[in-house]
Amino acid sequence: MINLKEFKTKFDREINQYLDNKIQEAEKIDKKAPDLIKIVKEFINYGGKRFRPAIFYYAYQSYSQRSLEKIFKLSFIFELFQTFALIHDDIIDKADLRRNWISVNKKYGIETAILAGDTALMLADELFYEICLEKPKINKLYNRFKQDTIIGQYFDLIKLCEVEKIIDLKTSRYSFIYPGIIGMTLAKASREEIQKWAEILKEVGFIFQLKDDFNGIFADEKIFGKPITSDLKEGKNTFIIKQFLLKATEKEKIKFYSFFGKQKVNHNHLNWIKKILNRKGIVEKIKKTILNRSNKIRKELSKFSRQTSLTSLINLILIRINEF
Amino acid sequence: MINLKEFKTKFDREINQYLDNKIQEAEKIDKKAPDLIKIVKEFINYGGKRFRPAIFYYAYQSYSQRSLEKIFKLSFIFELFQTFALIHDDIIDKADLRRNWISVNKKYGIETAILAGDTALMLADELFYEICLEKPKINKLYNRFKQDTIIGQYFDLIKLCEVEKIIDLKTSRYSFIYPGIIGMTLAKASREEIQKWAEILKEVGFIFQLKDDFNGIFADEKIFGKPITSDLKEGKNTFIIKQFLLKATEKEKIKFYSFFGKQKVNHNHLNWIKKILNRKGIVEKIKKTILNRSNKIRKELSKFSRQTSLTSLINLILIRINEF
Repeated sequence: MINLKEFKTKFDREINQYLDNKIQEAEKIDKKAPDLIKIVKEFINYGGKRFRPAIFYYAYQSYSQRSLEKIFKLSFIFELFQTFALIHDDIIDKADLRRNWISVNKKYGIETAILAGDTALMLADELFYEICLEKPKINKLYNRFKQDTIIGQYFDLIKLCEVEKIIDLKTSRYSFIYPGIIGMTLAKASREEIQKWAEILKEVGFIFQLKDDFNGIFADEKIFGKPITSDLKEGKNTFIIKQFLLKATEKEKIKFYSFFGKQKVNHNHLNWIKKILNRKGIVEKIKKTILNRSNKIRKELSKFSRQTSLTSLINLILIRINEF
Repeated sequence: MINLKEFKTKFDREINQYLDNKIQEAEKIDKKAPDLIKIVKEFINYGGKRFRPAIFYYAYQSYSQRSLEKIFKLSFIFELFQTFALIHDDIIDKADLRRNWISVNKKYGIETAILAGDTALMLADELFYEICLEKPKINKLYNRFKQDTIIGQYFDLIKLCEVEKIIDLKTSRYSFIYPGIIGMTLAKASREEIQKWAEILKEVGFIFQLKDDFNGIFADEKIFGKPITSDLKEGKNTFIIKQFLLKATEKEKIKFYSFFGKQKVNHNHLNWIKKILNRKGIVEKIKKTILNRSNKIRKELSKFSRQTSLTSLINLILIRINEF
């Protein structure tokens, strides 16, 4: 069993080797042919916590005695897919920054960013089927993983009212449930175990997104990796905004809608909403919700007959989510 | 064996049924969840000659005694992938029109168009692996088909000098070679036969693109399905433009670059270049090239020991390419 730091080091080294091989291969067509793969590689090396690949890998490890190199390699697909999703997402959100770096659309233009995103998706697919070609059950899960994510992004775009549905599709299933249950299914875990984990991971996804949305207003800009006003500019329909609207007076709502979803959002608007969220006890409520739900998850985790690399990883993620 | 008209009728009916099933399935998530699949369906019903699916299907039929329904269904992937490629291409080219209809980006916005394109690609993949799981050879071809196309689009975008390379990747391989050889490989045709066909289909792709570029200057706007000035506005690096630059005087080149690749291209510019292309004999040369190459292909086709649905289809395509 390797710990998260070792996992990340090995992951970063090997995904770079893998991408270098793909670049070399493409060079046979033309020296410009690997340009898009190079952008994918650059994006992956901008950072990222690799926790999706880690969830997948640990989920597998927790239910299998074997520690297979090809399962480690398979974990790349979650980072490649994430790269695809974020590159296209940044175009959609007109984001200039990502992970404290210039976004792909800003640096190379929308046109190249579309094709770079497509490339990342195709690399994920290629790798997935290189390893999982004869596994119909896993194939079905992988397709749901992909399509549910796009539906979630679409709901985000059209600002579907049911925030919980967006979080379920865009965060819980995408970042937690599918990486986890694909790993467990490959390891041939029992249906009951997988079901139990799916419920836990759904909960983790919910508070993870809650914290992310909270950070979208309260975080330190440098740590957040993009302008702290970006969520407000996008008019992102989050759980916090929903709470705000439930408690706001008519006058506050009018002021709110005068800037929400508009390019003109500035730090004055941000400070104004921060103050109100604090004053109305919404900040306290969010923190409490995260804490209570974390404790519930911890309790569920402790019920497993044995503690595994996956339970440790989820506990670690819970600690981070609870750092305010 | 069914003829092209019967193929198209059956194809249109069944791909609609297939998409309706996908829409129904997605509705279980939310009534807005199938929106993107509906856009894909709408796009497919805007028209299209279905010749990529037909090449695939006839290629299979020509080398197999069996006429399988699942092979017919598999032909959908070439239309779904084409939908993906064209939707993203129209965003890249900032095109307002496609097949005489408003383009997806113009009608629904760039954001939705990106996600609709992603959806079409994912549907193609899902269907491909539903049928071709456990076929590593076909899997490899399919991945090359996808990735080569993106590289071709990228070369088009950066206006790579070697026009022939763009045509090979973006048209020959994508529209002709891969649909053909994937069909033949599934039908277990011999390596030699597949190789022979790959060369023929490469040639067909070349003159097909040559004609398409010719149409990009000389076609009737209504038949072309988009503004006839769009190729010039994009500054598309075509074979005809290359010929023009080879024969143009310095003065003509200066005038040419004053509008080529710019939004201001109008019908005066178009008429000016048409006149020059005619005067310098380039039109005649293109027509002759197409005719000569077509005859060479026809000769190769006649060498096959038997005439099949695929040879008929290619002959039909050659007739259409030669209609000026």
